[in-house]
Amino acid sequence: MARINDNYLKLAAGYLFPEIGRRVRAFQDANPGAPIIRLGIGDVVLPLPGSICDAMHAAVDEMKTASGFRGYGPEQGYDFLREAIAEHDFRARGAAVDADEIFISDGSKCDSGNIQEIFSTDARVAIPDPVYPVYVDTNVMAGRTGAAGEDGRYAGLVYLPCTAAGGFLPEPPSEKVDLAWLCFPNNPTGAVARRADLERWVEWARRSDAVILFDAAYEAFITDPDIPHSIYEIDGAREVAIEFRSFSKAAGFTGTRCAFIVVPKTLRGAAADGSRVDLHRLWSRRHTTKFNGVSYPVQRAAAAVYTEAGRREVRANIDYYMSNAALIREGLSAAGLEVHGGVNAPYVWVRTPGELGSWQFFDLLLARAHVVGTPGAGFGAWGEGYFRLSAFGLREQVREAVERIRGAI
Amino acid sequence: MARINDNYLKLAAGYLFPEIGRRVRAFQDANPGAPIIRLGIGDVVLPLPGSICDAMHAAVDEMKTASGFRGYGPEQGYDFLREAIAEHDFRARGAAVDADEIFISDGSKCDSGNIQEIFSTDARVAIPDPVYPVYVDTNVMAGRTGAAGEDGRYAGLVYLPCTAAGGFLPEPPSEKVDLAWLCFPNNPTGAVARRADLERWVEWARRSDAVILFDAAYEAFITDPDIPHSIYEIDGAREVAIEFRSFSKAAGFTGTRCAFIVVPKTLRGAAADGSRVDLHRLWSRRHTTKFNGVSYPVQRAAAAVYTEAGRREVRANIDYYMSNAALIREGLSAAGLEVHGGVNAPYVWVRTPGELGSWQFFDLLLARAHVVGTPGAGFGAWGEGYFRLSAFGLREQVREAVERIRGAI
Repeated sequence: MARINDNYLKLAAGYLFPEIGRRVRAFQDANPGAPIIRLGIGDVVLPLPGSICDAMHAAVDEMKTASGFRGYGPEQGYDFLREAIAEHDFRARGAAVDADEIFISDGSKCDSGNIQEIFSTDARVAIPDPVYPVYVDTNVMAGRTGAAGEDGRYAGLVYLPCTAAGGFLPEPPSEKVDLAWLCFPNNPTGAVARRADLERWVEWARRSDAVILFDAAYEAFITDPDIPHSIYEIDGAREVAIEFRSFSKAAGFTGTRCAFIVVPKTLRGAAADGSRVDLHRLWSRRHTTKFNGVSYPVQRAAAAVYTEAGRREVRANIDYYMSNAALIREGLSAAGLEVHGGVNAPYVWVRTPGELGSWQFFDLLLARAHVVGTPGAGFGAWGEGYFRLSAFGLREQVREAVERIRGAI
Repeated sequence: MARINDNYLKLAAGYLFPEIGRRVRAFQDANPGAPIIRLGIGDVVLPLPGSICDAMHAAVDEMKTASGFRGYGPEQGYDFLREAIAEHDFRARGAAVDADEIFISDGSKCDSGNIQEIFSTDARVAIPDPVYPVYVDTNVMAGRTGAAGEDGRYAGLVYLPCTAAGGFLPEPPSEKVDLAWLCFPNNPTGAVARRADLERWVEWARRSDAVILFDAAYEAFITDPDIPHSIYEIDGAREVAIEFRSFSKAAGFTGTRCAFIVVPKTLRGAAADGSRVDLHRLWSRRHTTKFNGVSYPVQRAAAAVYTEAGRREVRANIDYYMSNAALIREGLSAAGLEVHGGVNAPYVWVRTPGELGSWQFFDLLLARAHVVGTPGAGFGAWGEGYFRLSAFGLREQVREAVERIRGAI
């Protein structure tokens, strides 16, 4: 009988969002009339901007013609997109990233799992807690952990607690690790890292020969001009960091699918014999061997995000969501709840009232307010006692959700 | 310093197609005027059918509206597509495959690498030779092999020679393996498996508790009604096979990106403790944790392949390519070359004339005929002395290429 990957059997429970889906469906079945408002999974709701749709239409029209048809594209992505990204996302902010250090993909979820393949299964990994569950689960699948304990924590991972006292910023680990995940603006807490915070991490990584896996999927929600959007705005980061970016939340691409990672050519890892190996070359080999590029019309759509019209439309959508975030923050704060995040980030991180656990609060809000959020405990042990609300909703629904939550607690 | 995956350092050379690209570019730089005809990489050239483009346009228009916008879809793919596939590709051919056994992806290249993650890195793997290089390279990356020998073969893999004497069909291995790759209609040889051939393989897999990884990416090119399109047309295959399908060659999606795999719910693997584990559940966990679904407009485009208009247009394109294949077969055969494949498959497998090696013949054709093909040796040691020509070209170019090859040899 074919031997399976036994690491999968270590996975503690269902992935967070399917579990939420299950509870919501069960509630709906029992209460078919209940008008549920979803501020849980963090999916965008505004239509795709017109200029982006126009670009996709134009690309589809090209595909229809003998002269415009495109078959296999470069696995790493088309130059028109990689160059637009290098220019607007990096060089315009003083971050030195070349177009050929950018690898276009169909999503950050894929990228955050896939990037691990170029590292040893023995690599020691530091992960903030609470955290986007995909970082943890994919490391478990890859065999970088032991079994889960009763608290859901996996042996072998180095957890970095993010607490209210520390502004929800993790401290660099004191023990030796190979890889450290960071996500700013943060999912789920909405915390942001200022320049000095990132400088400290880069300095730590350089000193300890570690690689930072920097998830900047929410950088577009930063409004404060002093907060870096990219880790490459920090001197020395090109030798220690890989960055993840996504069009999902920034431009409404959750159903259209486009993202990218940056692997600088100045980044090195160590082989078993101690020799230094170019990580850009390794990733390039992985990406070209196991991936065939993103759909051409989708890449054209992504490139339209950088046009003048695209930037204006995308900005308007982000402003809309950030007004939602302010409504949630202010409404729940006025109701006496302890509220974090929601500024420079589309997530509001709420302390559950009284002695309620995260899932208890989830069930309470679902039952009494018909509002779906995300239990903090789903993001890790240090998320217990918190609850994530997403600003990705229609204004009237967000307003209504805040009112209902105020009435339910 | 972060420890890398040392298995990558075992990879013998550049991936085949980038190496071809390098040689073609070098030739082009030295001979800027040479009118090169590419029958190498196997990329389609005909425009995307109109009905498919119309479906993609309609989906983009939905994305533009508040009511039609789609964010995250189901990771496994939309029901409208999974059900169309189950109906047309399987039930219509008497193969029992349910919609929820189908997982939509962005390409077979991804799928053939990714599927391996649910199996042990100790799994013993049988691979035909010659073969699509991705099967080999991804197993090397995953650590299922030792180093490459001088002949390019990796220690630990069980190679199954496909020779002219055996009709280019591999024999089931006599030694114990966990996984066996098969591809029919075959890339690169163009060989097809008849019902009795597949029955033998299924029987072997059932007897030896192995899993067959069946790549049917070229099934749409089968014209002979007696040849199975799916391994699930064979009784008992649901307990031993995973099947890979792609819209790339069948419907011109190489630049649009959509594929799928079938993992039957009746398939089991073995955990380290000997217990049996449901592979559908393992793959479902992998797919939902590390992938976020295919672009919605692309899934609508793929579903249009199954409409009456879509089927007619797709069929016309396939007929066009198969007429090319006949031209190549007949032209080169008349020129005295030994020619295989090209019937029920878009690849023609040519014996190199005289004592020429595959890469020598590649260089000769490039230099003298300005025709790019694929050296058989790039597909494995048993491909040495062969050369692959693809039927994916425009008629006039194919005709011209055949003439030029006849003049060059």
